[in-house]
Amino acid sequence: MPGYDDVRVLAFDTFGTITDWFTGISDAVGLEVPAVDAGAFTHDWRRRYAPIMARVESGELPWRRLDDLQTETLHDVATAFGFSLTDDQARRLVRSWRTIPAWPDAAAGLRRLRVRYVVCALSNGTVALLTDMARHNGFDWDVIGGSDLWRHYKPARETYCGLADLLEVEPSRVMMVATHQHDLDAARGFGLRTAFIERPMEWGGDPKDDSGSPANDVHARDLHDLADRLGC
Amino acid sequence: MPGYDDVRVLAFDTFGTITDWFTGISDAVGLEVPAVDAGAFTHDWRRRYAPIMARVESGELPWRRLDDLQTETLHDVATAFGFSLTDDQARRLVRSWRTIPAWPDAAAGLRRLRVRYVVCALSNGTVALLTDMARHNGFDWDVIGGSDLWRHYKPARETYCGLADLLEVEPSRVMMVATHQHDLDAARGFGLRTAFIERPMEWGGDPKDDSGSPANDVHARDLHDLADRLGC
Repeated sequence: MPGYDDVRVLAFDTFGTITDWFTGISDAVGLEVPAVDAGAFTHDWRRRYAPIMARVESGELPWRRLDDLQTETLHDVATAFGFSLTDDQARRLVRSWRTIPAWPDAAAGLRRLRVRYVVCALSNGTVALLTDMARHNGFDWDVIGGSDLWRHYKPARETYCGLADLLEVEPSRVMMVATHQHDLDAARGFGLRTAFIERPMEWGGDPKDDSGSPANDVHARDLHDLADRLGC
Repeated sequence: MPGYDDVRVLAFDTFGTITDWFTGISDAVGLEVPAVDAGAFTHDWRRRYAPIMARVESGELPWRRLDDLQTETLHDVATAFGFSLTDDQARRLVRSWRTIPAWPDAAAGLRRLRVRYVVCALSNGTVALLTDMARHNGFDWDVIGGSDLWRHYKPARETYCGLADLLEVEPSRVMMVATHQHDLDAARGFGLRTAFIERPMEWGGDPKDDSGSPANDVHARDLHDLADRLGC
């Protein structure tokens, strides 16, 4: 394994990389609001995810947990679709991010990788959200790195370097694993190694661009392929 | 289960409650310094553990990680025993707290309890130390609550209430599990439920007082007995 023999920690993005948010959220939307185009609604909600976190990181908004941000954007999407949600409906839909299903290879792939590496979630969800997600899907994390530990959202430095510091290793001994090139580019900028995972169906019917980048240390089809490439 | 039906989280003390520090540390001392009375040395080192953390909590000392505090007290013990340790010896002995053995019921008991409860470490060790301990002993924690998350040491309020906050539950939904009554008394004072675990051999040859207190919600012989009493 030239170049990354000294990696000790694998840090996983969760929404999209190990779980299928499109299926989970569009199913929940379909149950809650049968009349709406659940796929389009889900896409719109997800597109509002990064921008509102960026407003927190810029200092425009104070720190708030992901659930609170998602509640705000959810009501905005409903308004854009021409209806409104009750507080109970909104609460259930926001909670549904805790039980989105895993990609089929995720739980078993994490177990394989954990034999050799310290496997961690590094996600914009809170520790409590990620704990529910893990228990729902059988993810056996060593450590759950939720955004509330640092009160910062990726791609802020505090999250990537915060996890390395928490595990008492240099950033170069942490490999970020994600299906989003911008997450990996940020991680690399702060000294982490990077692995791209293909999830072409992340957005549902239309395959996304999973070409990744030659700058990544590893490019893998799924977590089993990652485990093979890392010699697990 | 009258009185604690609504408990969702079990928070475990680690040193003494699920791991046998006396055996682990006295073995390490015996290897490193064969001429010393390893049991007496280990007792002395352990007795200096709570007082130096209390000096951090009082504000007399700035926040430092447990390993740094243990390094200082280790050199003090060596001086008291009439010798000195090299930095490498001290580093190895301090690191040996990461690989102390589990009590025989611990890993399997945690697995049973985890089916129904969110199981967490709540310890004065750091997250990295507790991660090493967990991987060494097969503890499958949902969440590792290390003192560095809050930069406070038990019995400070910030640790007990910090874990409840991290898991987004009221303190009354968290049950502290420990073999130290002072830890449980502090937890109860901040609104947590409490379970005493008997570990009569915690200090080696001389059984300690494991009578606990009627104020505890549960008194159990070990983690299997705790699982039985909690209906797992």
